[in-house]
Amino acid sequence: MNLFLLHPEQHLEGDLWRLDERQSAHARTVLKLAEGDTCRAGVLNDGLGEARIESIKNNEITLSFKVDSNPPVPLPLNLVLALPRPKMLKRLLIDAASLGIKRIVLINAWKVDKSYWRTPNLKAGLLREKLLLGLEQAGDTVLPELIQAPRFRPFVEDDLDGWAGDGPRFLAHPGDHPSLPHELEGPATLAIGPEGGWTPFEVELLREHGFQTHRFGSRILRVETALPALVGALMRLP
Amino acid sequence: MNLFLLHPEQHLEGDLWRLDERQSAHARTVLKLAEGDTCRAGVLNDGLGEARIESIKNNEITLSFKVDSNPPVPLPLNLVLALPRPKMLKRLLIDAASLGIKRIVLINAWKVDKSYWRTPNLKAGLLREKLLLGLEQAGDTVLPELIQAPRFRPFVEDDLDGWAGDGPRFLAHPGDHPSLPHELEGPATLAIGPEGGWTPFEVELLREHGFQTHRFGSRILRVETALPALVGALMRLP
Repeated sequence: MNLFLLHPEQHLEGDLWRLDERQSAHARTVLKLAEGDTCRAGVLNDGLGEARIESIKNNEITLSFKVDSNPPVPLPLNLVLALPRPKMLKRLLIDAASLGIKRIVLINAWKVDKSYWRTPNLKAGLLREKLLLGLEQAGDTVLPELIQAPRFRPFVEDDLDGWAGDGPRFLAHPGDHPSLPHELEGPATLAIGPEGGWTPFEVELLREHGFQTHRFGSRILRVETALPALVGALMRLP
Repeated sequence: MNLFLLHPEQHLEGDLWRLDERQSAHARTVLKLAEGDTCRAGVLNDGLGEARIESIKNNEITLSFKVDSNPPVPLPLNLVLALPRPKMLKRLLIDAASLGIKRIVLINAWKVDKSYWRTPNLKAGLLREKLLLGLEQAGDTVLPELIQAPRFRPFVEDDLDGWAGDGPRFLAHPGDHPSLPHELEGPATLAIGPEGGWTPFEVELLREHGFQTHRFGSRILRVETALPALVGALMRLP
């Protein structure tokens, strides 16, 4: 947690804000803050600033805080992510948010286990919680937009163009393809398949919708390794 | 598990090998292999080949297998990693091994919690187990060399030059530094600091020993996100 990300309901009055339970625990046990200490804070979907601990009473911590700067520049990369295993999904959302990705679609694929779509992790509140952890890690305030596409073909055929916009679209896929480009400044769209990969039909449909297939080394990586590695390779991180 | 990694003690006679308990469970419950089916296998620190299931008896699975090809090309990157939290260490070792890194030093740093050096995870057998998982993921057989340097300064001053060799040495560090180079073919050495970063003294000592400081975006990433992102950015994956 590299900043306290404040939500509108934590606002008291004027410049005063209240930390929530998790933030208070972090302030006390990890940062060991005392009255008068300063720390970084930000308001959800707004700016950043320095906060001052005004009072610590019965585990309730009050800050004074004013926005004085912008959140970090977003990474102009849209992520099409085949729905991963629930445990992996949590980590991938934290990673994606911390890397600055702002637009994510969780999409179905032939090799996505059907049960993954029924997991309680897909509740909006839980997804949002992981994205917030990623923002806190990276000192960001801007919540990524996350949508779910439980049907692959209708999303790719009907919605992808509008969602992904104009930038180039990339697909890492084993085989004799050109190497992935490097240091793009975006906007761009990256598709990451399920464990076991996209089927030939899925690759073909993505190619018909503007995705270029690229080689990214010869090793089969776990999705949670592949996401940051691909983002680091493809994009110039702002 | 993208290959069965066979250890010398699993050899029976001639071309015959026995799967261990974990491999047998994977063969039965995930891959659902039957007698006569084929699968990928490799011998630790040797080559790869196709294996055939010869018999499945009382949970004991016997393969016939011959080496017919080389393991994937290693990534010519040495990794200097400040000892992370035990839970994170496990994932980082799997990631590093799956990315093809073959030389790792776990090093102390001011912001490494002293208790991390006393964790049972640092036993050689447990470290090796995580590295093997990474190899199985990536279809590799060559076990990385992993050493521990519980004292930062003596290692950097006395052992680093011999260990890291001739390639360039990189340190990602916040601040006004040149951007990280891209698509190196190696050899090279990358140092990754602890949560909270290297201290100014540590950065200075690493610079005195040939490390160039580079900027890698403005966001603070978790170490487990930073490792694959940095490797993807810096190296051309073979």
